[in-house]
Amino acid sequence: MKIIEGDVCSAKGFTANGINCGIRKNKSKRDLSLVYSQVPAAAAAVYTTNLVKGAPLQVTKEHIANGYAQAVIVNSGNANTCNDNGIEIAEGMCQLAADKLGIKPEDVVVGSTGVIGQKLSLDPIAAGIDELVSGLSVEGGLFAEEGIMTTDTVPKQVAVEFEIGGKTCRMGGMAKGSGMINPNMATMLVFITTDAAVSPELLNKALKNDIRNTFNMISVDGDTSTNDMVVVLANGLAENPIIDSEGDDFAVFMEALNTVNVYLCRMIAGDGEGATKLLECQVSGSKDLDTAKTVAKSVISSSLLKAAMFGEDANWGRVLCAIGYSGADVDVNKIDVAFQSNAGEILVCKNGAGVDFSEEKAKEILSEKEIDIIIGLNDGECEAKAWGCDLTYDYVKINGDYRT
Amino acid sequence: MKIIEGDVCSAKGFTANGINCGIRKNKSKRDLSLVYSQVPAAAAAVYTTNLVKGAPLQVTKEHIANGYAQAVIVNSGNANTCNDNGIEIAEGMCQLAADKLGIKPEDVVVGSTGVIGQKLSLDPIAAGIDELVSGLSVEGGLFAEEGIMTTDTVPKQVAVEFEIGGKTCRMGGMAKGSGMINPNMATMLVFITTDAAVSPELLNKALKNDIRNTFNMISVDGDTSTNDMVVVLANGLAENPIIDSEGDDFAVFMEALNTVNVYLCRMIAGDGEGATKLLECQVSGSKDLDTAKTVAKSVISSSLLKAAMFGEDANWGRVLCAIGYSGADVDVNKIDVAFQSNAGEILVCKNGAGVDFSEEKAKEILSEKEIDIIIGLNDGECEAKAWGCDLTYDYVKINGDYRT
Repeated sequence: MKIIEGDVCSAKGFTANGINCGIRKNKSKRDLSLVYSQVPAAAAAVYTTNLVKGAPLQVTKEHIANGYAQAVIVNSGNANTCNDNGIEIAEGMCQLAADKLGIKPEDVVVGSTGVIGQKLSLDPIAAGIDELVSGLSVEGGLFAEEGIMTTDTVPKQVAVEFEIGGKTCRMGGMAKGSGMINPNMATMLVFITTDAAVSPELLNKALKNDIRNTFNMISVDGDTSTNDMVVVLANGLAENPIIDSEGDDFAVFMEALNTVNVYLCRMIAGDGEGATKLLECQVSGSKDLDTAKTVAKSVISSSLLKAAMFGEDANWGRVLCAIGYSGADVDVNKIDVAFQSNAGEILVCKNGAGVDFSEEKAKEILSEKEIDIIIGLNDGECEAKAWGCDLTYDYVKINGDYRT
Repeated sequence: MKIIEGDVCSAKGFTANGINCGIRKNKSKRDLSLVYSQVPAAAAAVYTTNLVKGAPLQVTKEHIANGYAQAVIVNSGNANTCNDNGIEIAEGMCQLAADKLGIKPEDVVVGSTGVIGQKLSLDPIAAGIDELVSGLSVEGGLFAEEGIMTTDTVPKQVAVEFEIGGKTCRMGGMAKGSGMINPNMATMLVFITTDAAVSPELLNKALKNDIRNTFNMISVDGDTSTNDMVVVLANGLAENPIIDSEGDDFAVFMEALNTVNVYLCRMIAGDGEGATKLLECQVSGSKDLDTAKTVAKSVISSSLLKAAMFGEDANWGRVLCAIGYSGADVDVNKIDVAFQSNAGEILVCKNGAGVDFSEEKAKEILSEKEIDIIIGLNDGECEAKAWGCDLTYDYVKINGDYRT
């Protein structure tokens, strides 16, 4: 498994583009993106568990019900959610893309991100579709990524190269996500492309398995969006023997998908709204996987701990507190806690009670940009990771007046 | 039911005091409080559901197992939690108070609040106990309240007067709580005194029933503390016929307790760490009580909505979003949302979709200090309220470096 420089166009047969079509008033910000596969691709997706679901998710669900898709159109600047004409608009976006690409609208996946509850007009999209489609290219991955970013401060892209059945395959992904991040069974906007040949059933299985340990284990602010979606397209142009059952090839594919997803998870968490630090919580010694995940997610979600990390304060009592209210069945008196970063590692709690430690060393460790919170439950063999970020003044600033 | 000026000393036979004994380095901040009833009182308490429970809670639980108590000793500046000698210290605090008061240590309730995981020494408490006890007076309620405050910016006290069986009774309460506020089955530190005569069984029943609609419906930051407790002492000195069964007298007592608790809830939420606004979410038209409570609590807990309220931004999409991920079974297409304050009321969402509204008027309404978020589910007859506060720069500041 090799991480390579790349994006959603790294796999064979994929092109992309992103433009400003005028949904956003700021003309320097792209707001409409397209990813296109030259042949129909197996498609799988997961969606938000929020009961309020964006119209684009409902349309996408219908469109990939047959297991295939060929293009993805996404806008930023408007979530197309909680509007009475949402379905009509989402279908209109697919139709516009399909007409110009010469494919069926049912083979188009659609996504939207932005403000909830303001009507989205098709006019700017109709006006921009020519430019969007004619500009499709294998260099367009970054433009497409820029077109889906909202409060993101950095583009989030990755690609990997792997081998299946003697054939070199590639997989690339792009993501947007910065606030309203607490996915459950789906997350944010993530689009992954691969030229590996894999059946829709196995693609679906791979995605559903993997997100439990990746996108569902991030939290920026505990708010689960209405528009989260992760979509994978696999067009088979790598010409590997098609993966249509579990086995070694499927395992390699799963590893590729996990590598891409963990990479994007870390980027999303580290670029959480206002964040100055990426937090990774590593829980080990758990009696079962659910316990490890519950503990990791609770710690990473604690506003108090997140604020302490911003302040570079080794306030481990807040780690214990977040474990305690997580609902996980743990033996408090066995818990060890350490903080780790590039500057070293320091044990701060042993068997559920404080140990003497150097505040100076702790401060040095916590002053780094990537902090690991290492929790030993000493009660079994299972482990889990979760990703989050610190809570900062800028989170409040960004969200205090998002609409203007 | 009459709200009167008063505190934990408003009911007959209660005295209180609060001093600085040196647990906190800042000598101008009281850190040790005592509330005393001249006769033994029926006692009931509820505690945090956090699996990590402060040692004082465990000792208090044992001490009031027989249904009676006569004094409450509480320190701030140190939570006496996650220390291997915690039980010993909590028992030592009870012993010191009991010896000086001439009562049994088993009749003393003990609480602590402050940093988790730093050992608490008995020395300052032993040194201060003379001053603490000798200074007990009916004017000492505010001193006691000050002794339990941490990041609180205002004292939180209230008293009510009511009549049972022709006798005038009083009930007074004090609370501390500002951060780490997301109680469940108990909350923060709240001490309530009354001279009404009520059996321990009925006192317990009244408390457990009431907190479901009061203290369990507040959230400042989603973090459930390890040391939350609500304690009620009822010493019977009002000489009403003892309340030992449900009926009219019990109903009056419940109303008194609810009045005190709602008042303290609003004070705690409004004084949430860094808060500039008190938020009250009123949910009506729910098919059952649980749904109404789940919706209200989810909305009040959303970091994104809290930040929008700080920014005075009528971003109602975040209200819908928080309802959607709450887990409550609601019909999104029936939901109405309005914002209300002293400056008026404005409908922003009807049947799950946006309506045209004046942004100017909305801004005027949201610029007030107390904001009601009014949600109509239009699906039944049940209703619930929850209380919270906005999320501000100062929350981050306060919690970024709490220990220093």
